[in-house]
Amino acid sequence: MIIRPSGHSRHRSRPDPTQANCWIVSISRVRLRCITKSGDGMRTESLQLSPRDHENVITLNASGIIMHPNGKVYLVGSGPGDPELLTIKALRLIKGADVIVYDQLPGPEILASLPKSAELIDVGKYAGDHTLSQDEINRLLVDYALQGKTVVRLKGGDPYLFGRGGEEALELRKVGIEFEVVPGITSAIAVPAYAGIPITHRDNASMVTIITGHEQKKAGSMLDWEWLSRSLGTIVILMGVSTLGTYIPELMRYGSDPDTPVAIIERGTRDDQVVTTGSLSTIVGIAKDRGVKAPAIVVIGDVVRLHEVLG
Amino acid sequence: MIIRPSGHSRHRSRPDPTQANCWIVSISRVRLRCITKSGDGMRTESLQLSPRDHENVITLNASGIIMHPNGKVYLVGSGPGDPELLTIKALRLIKGADVIVYDQLPGPEILASLPKSAELIDVGKYAGDHTLSQDEINRLLVDYALQGKTVVRLKGGDPYLFGRGGEEALELRKVGIEFEVVPGITSAIAVPAYAGIPITHRDNASMVTIITGHEQKKAGSMLDWEWLSRSLGTIVILMGVSTLGTYIPELMRYGSDPDTPVAIIERGTRDDQVVTTGSLSTIVGIAKDRGVKAPAIVVIGDVVRLHEVLG
Repeated sequence: MIIRPSGHSRHRSRPDPTQANCWIVSISRVRLRCITKSGDGMRTESLQLSPRDHENVITLNASGIIMHPNGKVYLVGSGPGDPELLTIKALRLIKGADVIVYDQLPGPEILASLPKSAELIDVGKYAGDHTLSQDEINRLLVDYALQGKTVVRLKGGDPYLFGRGGEEALELRKVGIEFEVVPGITSAIAVPAYAGIPITHRDNASMVTIITGHEQKKAGSMLDWEWLSRSLGTIVILMGVSTLGTYIPELMRYGSDPDTPVAIIERGTRDDQVVTTGSLSTIVGIAKDRGVKAPAIVVIGDVVRLHEVLG
Repeated sequence: MIIRPSGHSRHRSRPDPTQANCWIVSISRVRLRCITKSGDGMRTESLQLSPRDHENVITLNASGIIMHPNGKVYLVGSGPGDPELLTIKALRLIKGADVIVYDQLPGPEILASLPKSAELIDVGKYAGDHTLSQDEINRLLVDYALQGKTVVRLKGGDPYLFGRGGEEALELRKVGIEFEVVPGITSAIAVPAYAGIPITHRDNASMVTIITGHEQKKAGSMLDWEWLSRSLGTIVILMGVSTLGTYIPELMRYGSDPDTPVAIIERGTRDDQVVTTGSLSTIVGIAKDRGVKAPAIVVIGDVVRLHEVLG
């Protein structure tokens, strides 16, 4: 069992982990009380235990318990794939990490540059071919942090824009592990930019709506294509290729102008980026003819016309 | 007059600028023809001139013209203000720039760190107190590039999300100046993230619409509050404080649930960040009572509830 201070506040003072003068007063399945030195006097610390603690190892010495300080988890966005689009903070954290938990979304160049000094864990190919579920990933982050490790959870794009970072953050907060979110450059903006498409532009669009094509496959999808068909701004669809043949006709059925320009950007920001353009009425056929494949981002709206000039 | 190769392709080969064997054949207000060495033979180069060329200086030597290669302009996003949220690429370009053209949006910390080796031009306080118009900024970028300078146009957030980067890019392309867009971390995602609000979250929102509060003040505004009132996702409003008292009642008038949570984040990502929360029905009064001021970002939607847990 590893003893951790209770509570969710990251600012709460905690006993000095190297503090030997810490005597256990009482211990139960849910609470541990101990006495620590505080300046010249003594004070009682009350620590809340989580069920998870009981699966781990308690360390005792002659004068009481040794407090293991928890590690910290950084939920780090790695941007759209270009290693130079990492933030300075992301690079610093990657270099200093004990453990880096990643999947394939950061892209080959960034993954190839991860430091060998860290324990590298590919949650897409964990223990052979097993892909970890979100619950299993959450668990992994918690377990390493409880061992006192500095953990970087490296995610493509931005952790909080369709990155499931919110779910990981909630789990960490629930267990009382300190964490920090480090925003990344989102593909939703950078990929169109590299293709010469500003997603907002004074003459074309004062508004952008960002969605994910995968959402459409989910039961109880929150996407409302009737509503989207009446957008006056740009629509950006992440992971928008596999469901293209479904939602493009939906938009037109609800009244979107069939001549609205559409761009599909494959392997955006990479050297082998390919941009395919058309209109709502033609893009599904064009994409099929050209064998457009994921990963790709779809942009719908008048700003797509700027690709001809700025791309 | 500075002679530049014509055309918009950045990949077009151009005469070697140190090439002395380049003789002018003909020159008009719009076109210059000259003969250059090409391998063992000779070939004719046709160069298109822009009116702007005629304001500059042509350099001739005994055997013909000396080609001045143009500089390049980088439209660089600096992110929401934390210097560690600059990208590696942005930092490299800033360090290598001859000229940095900026306004106050990158924030005090980043502006204080700009290298003294570069010519620093504050377009918000140009020549005393004169604030440059967008046209004047465009002109400045072109003029420095025509002098062969490497120019960084440093912009808060991302250049292509309400950054007017598209307008600058169009002007540069029109004149034939090479440019590159370097995406930045947008405040629209990072500021809510620092306040513990993932703008998308599995249980709350599969979609986000980003707008700017300033748009509302424009004649012919493209914002449709009736449409926005029926969003099933998150709405993020950049520069959303000064018009708060106008658009919040609009949303309710069109049917948005008055209990929809709202957060206003002042000075986001900075040490003195302040988060004010309420609902559509209460936020205008709360903001007034607390003296909420720009710069601030407004987030509307169920994801705001996560601030209580993750903030």
